[in-house]
Amino acid sequence: MTTHEFWGELGQQLRVDSIRASAAAGSGHPTSSMSAADLMAVLLAKYLRYDFAKPTEPTNDHLIFSKGHASPLLYSMYKAAGAIADNELLSFRKFGSRLEGHPTPKIKWVDVATGSLGQGLPCAVGVALAGKRLDRLPYRVWALCGDSEMAEGSIWEAFDHASHEALDNLVAIIDVNRLGQRGETMLGWNTAAYVRRAEAFGWRAIEVDGHDVAAIDDAYAQAVVGDGRPTAIIARTIKGKGVAAVENRNGFHGKPLADPDAAIRELGGIRDLTAHPSAPPVGAQPHRFAAKAGAPARWSVGEKVATRRAYGDALAALGTRNAMIVALDGEVGNSTYTELFAATHPDRYFEMYIAEQQLVATAVGLQVRGWIPFAATFAAFWSRAYDFIRMAAVSRADIRLVGSHCGVSIGQDGPSQMGLEDIAAIRSVHGSTVLYPSCANQTAKLVAAMVDQTGVSYLRTTRASTPVLYSPDDDFGVGGSRVLRCSIHDEVTVVAAGITLHEALAAADTLATQGINARVIDLYSIKPIDAATLLDAAEATGTIVTVEDHHPEGGIGDAVLEVFADTTARPRVVTLAVRIMPTSGTPDELLAQAGIDRDQIVKTVRDLLRPATAGVLIADRA
Amino acid sequence: MTTHEFWGELGQQLRVDSIRASAAAGSGHPTSSMSAADLMAVLLAKYLRYDFAKPTEPTNDHLIFSKGHASPLLYSMYKAAGAIADNELLSFRKFGSRLEGHPTPKIKWVDVATGSLGQGLPCAVGVALAGKRLDRLPYRVWALCGDSEMAEGSIWEAFDHASHEALDNLVAIIDVNRLGQRGETMLGWNTAAYVRRAEAFGWRAIEVDGHDVAAIDDAYAQAVVGDGRPTAIIARTIKGKGVAAVENRNGFHGKPLADPDAAIRELGGIRDLTAHPSAPPVGAQPHRFAAKAGAPARWSVGEKVATRRAYGDALAALGTRNAMIVALDGEVGNSTYTELFAATHPDRYFEMYIAEQQLVATAVGLQVRGWIPFAATFAAFWSRAYDFIRMAAVSRADIRLVGSHCGVSIGQDGPSQMGLEDIAAIRSVHGSTVLYPSCANQTAKLVAAMVDQTGVSYLRTTRASTPVLYSPDDDFGVGGSRVLRCSIHDEVTVVAAGITLHEALAAADTLATQGINARVIDLYSIKPIDAATLLDAAEATGTIVTVEDHHPEGGIGDAVLEVFADTTARPRVVTLAVRIMPTSGTPDELLAQAGIDRDQIVKTVRDLLRPATAGVLIADRA
Repeated sequence: MTTHEFWGELGQQLRVDSIRASAAAGSGHPTSSMSAADLMAVLLAKYLRYDFAKPTEPTNDHLIFSKGHASPLLYSMYKAAGAIADNELLSFRKFGSRLEGHPTPKIKWVDVATGSLGQGLPCAVGVALAGKRLDRLPYRVWALCGDSEMAEGSIWEAFDHASHEALDNLVAIIDVNRLGQRGETMLGWNTAAYVRRAEAFGWRAIEVDGHDVAAIDDAYAQAVVGDGRPTAIIARTIKGKGVAAVENRNGFHGKPLADPDAAIRELGGIRDLTAHPSAPPVGAQPHRFAAKAGAPARWSVGEKVATRRAYGDALAALGTRNAMIVALDGEVGNSTYTELFAATHPDRYFEMYIAEQQLVATAVGLQVRGWIPFAATFAAFWSRAYDFIRMAAVSRADIRLVGSHCGVSIGQDGPSQMGLEDIAAIRSVHGSTVLYPSCANQTAKLVAAMVDQTGVSYLRTTRASTPVLYSPDDDFGVGGSRVLRCSIHDEVTVVAAGITLHEALAAADTLATQGINARVIDLYSIKPIDAATLLDAAEATGTIVTVEDHHPEGGIGDAVLEVFADTTARPRVVTLAVRIMPTSGTPDELLAQAGIDRDQIVKTVRDLLRPATAGVLIADRA
Repeated sequence: MTTHEFWGELGQQLRVDSIRASAAAGSGHPTSSMSAADLMAVLLAKYLRYDFAKPTEPTNDHLIFSKGHASPLLYSMYKAAGAIADNELLSFRKFGSRLEGHPTPKIKWVDVATGSLGQGLPCAVGVALAGKRLDRLPYRVWALCGDSEMAEGSIWEAFDHASHEALDNLVAIIDVNRLGQRGETMLGWNTAAYVRRAEAFGWRAIEVDGHDVAAIDDAYAQAVVGDGRPTAIIARTIKGKGVAAVENRNGFHGKPLADPDAAIRELGGIRDLTAHPSAPPVGAQPHRFAAKAGAPARWSVGEKVATRRAYGDALAALGTRNAMIVALDGEVGNSTYTELFAATHPDRYFEMYIAEQQLVATAVGLQVRGWIPFAATFAAFWSRAYDFIRMAAVSRADIRLVGSHCGVSIGQDGPSQMGLEDIAAIRSVHGSTVLYPSCANQTAKLVAAMVDQTGVSYLRTTRASTPVLYSPDDDFGVGGSRVLRCSIHDEVTVVAAGITLHEALAAADTLATQGINARVIDLYSIKPIDAATLLDAAEATGTIVTVEDHHPEGGIGDAVLEVFADTTARPRVVTLAVRIMPTSGTPDELLAQAGIDRDQIVKTVRDLLRPATAGVLIADRA
């Protein structure tokens, strides 16, 4: 058998195995796998440099199936490489199998979960960036993309950044099989249009017949010669290739074949070829930056410092002592203060411009290679990348997100810039951590804690400068809280965090002058939450008032209610939150408009405890 | 004064007024306004066809500031057009002023809120689509874009769709002032690169010096001659143009000028020119499709129908009787069943391919023109457009979103396809409505109710076929619930919706055989919520168990807890929800794995009420 014949046979085997796996599962995407089978056969047999026995080998190439629904093809490649047995292949999509409907890193050869289209290529950009700028290793990143997902804007964020960063270690293989889930794509087989777009975005584009193994070989041979540009291989393919019943026909997406046995016969039967990928270069180790001793950021109690500023200072200081830390920002580094890290550690800073999806994807890609990413933008704009955050959890990625400018307290910019849903959205992501400091020293401790955190962790920072409340020697960790006002006479507990904690403290001081003792809890860790302290407070004081600069649904109030739900302590809980569509105004005007300022806290507590006299006395404005 | 001199003077006035407004506010983006002042002067004085006295005139052009932070420029245009007085201009960003930091439709001349970059152009595509395919009126849509926002993938979704739909009534004006918030953009003044990208995406691109009014005039003159393509005017401009202290200099983004008086002098002082836009064509009325009589969709009790399928049938039937209804889908219409509407009403169906941001933006754009959009994709993939959904609320847009394939009950496809955060995310959006039917007839009633709903309304549908529970003559409305099992002996209440309602009913039946009466509430309206029924149940039965196919944070459990928080009825609430990262498997396996199936409900209730015997008896699998 010639090499070309072997590749052809291997392609047929990948098709047959994709059909078999989907048939055994009773679901799956065999036709989407069959279009890319020849492309993957040549890649596996000749170009991929990968040691399946050593998935953590630093010089291994990376293969990301951006079209994650072609998982039968990926798993068939594992079988062809001898990495999994045939019986495991046939466990596809079954309960308990690691071969899920879409790939996840439960499989050790998978870097990132895919299945939400348009995410694999952006994550591949992140891995390629790590290769070029951090690891400084010659591994290549191969991303198999579907043509349908080229309609996702995130794909063009990836194209934009890959050329801007000159990632000639990145190859995107576009499987242009013309047919989406329910019909033809916008561009169909107009491969020339894909070429024009890729070139306009600064890529080298190579058009190829995706079923001609010699042509594929030529295309890959060009792609691996770096010329400073990423390469897009625009492969014209046929969906369901090789089986007349489904070939290039609409209506067969995401379905096992009706007659798999006939299809397998048509493809020449079951094969058991083995394709050994090339070994990765031996011995090369990833570049490491030098860590240095350095003092952590610290501030004096009473100093006025915005927590967003404290984030920047703290991260820059941490980055000196831990050289695996890297930082990214969505072109607002002078607002989030990521610029302080960028100035101190320019080699480990990634400017992601106004492309929040690529911002998260890059963080995910960098952590694939063991780096510790912190990514920042406005709290409101994480909503732009929410699907990427959700998928980061499926990817078991350890990423750290920081959202500044939360809530109405940002003031004049108005609601488009106010993060008012971020706690709800990120709290709902599986395995996430949500932190919300009110003080610069506390921020520094929480940023340090995030370094060791698994999963998606999120820090919410405030635009306004607020007084430093805690000593730089105080400890704060994930899952903690702090009781700031407490006496045996407490009649109510006010739970707050961030900007509203300062309002709560002022309100408690006013209430104290009026003979009402209010316990004040700083709930800086919203998820996980310090249930014990809240339960103590409920037992001691009964009524609870929560105050948050966030919409009422899914935020601090809900997190507190969850604590009490299934306990014997079920206090009355009044939730103050932003129940309006805010406007422009000063921070004080907007906190008052939303009913989450010190005056409203005082009034609420008095209404609860001294209804006859409520409204008479309000908080002093310090 | 020649026409060109007038335009030049008008541009200077717009600069001066942008500076004055920002100075009065003490914040704002004068330099980002100054770069586009000449572009807007020529547009206002010659090309815009708009009657400021009649903002609802159907033939008015539409002007959308995609770079919403250039609001001082927009408001200065209003002043120049005589639409607002100078003293109102100077109320910019002040509490109570409609001239907020970023434009919102509180101003009657604003179609959509902007300020989250990369959203105005996609919404403009929606308005232009309405003009071409629905209204069939000759209005033009002008979108002023910043160069920084060209990094947002959503911009390229807009480019893609605008050319695919041949929107030659759309003109994007790209203000290439080179400087973003914290430095140069990726492309700087490489206007040729923008031209290449626009052309590769099928647009006509015209490069122009954005400060040469004659050249701008020429460019607009070409743009208004339709040739089947949308037009991008790539304007090279200077940020802060006209004031040496800030002109083309970094570090002056989003700040009022340090010395506004000197700047105004440098620009030739305050002017009071009036520019009257051309009148829109008189008399033309928007096209209306013919409504017809038709029966609503209805099913027999006990029939097995997926609620996603019922959505498609119900919407198709509604669309016959109400010809203002339009439908959109993200290339999954054969899964969401939007295809049933598309087949019946092809003229009112919009295929948005796999571009969820453009999917929402199109819905927002269509409702600007009074159409009633329903947009569908998988529940999980609304997370891709979450920023657009958030901004739709700021836009006061009435849009209807439908998310199918929610929760683990989808089965084999695995977590990437499971909507498990959608209730939390959308519930947190201001003014939203969240509905989650469990029965086909109920679905039809709720879809009908959504037609009249303001704000963002969301319907969550289920993949699996489930038995029809209710008669087609039963009524269901926003804010309601239904008590399905109820007796004076009830010891517990189970609150569920969608797939878990069917599990709850089976569990209640099993419990009944074991001598335990469980009330069962169908909480099909999660927001607003039927507090009265829940409070009655709490009073009658004490303990509540909530069951949801969603992560625990922000979902049904939290919504129920909010009801009781500040009442005297504060029952024990046990929340069953998806607390794991799910896998592939059958729906039954995954419901069991997540602990939200009938067996777990039975076990939970027995643990609560008969702890000694719990776990002995479980639910029959029907």
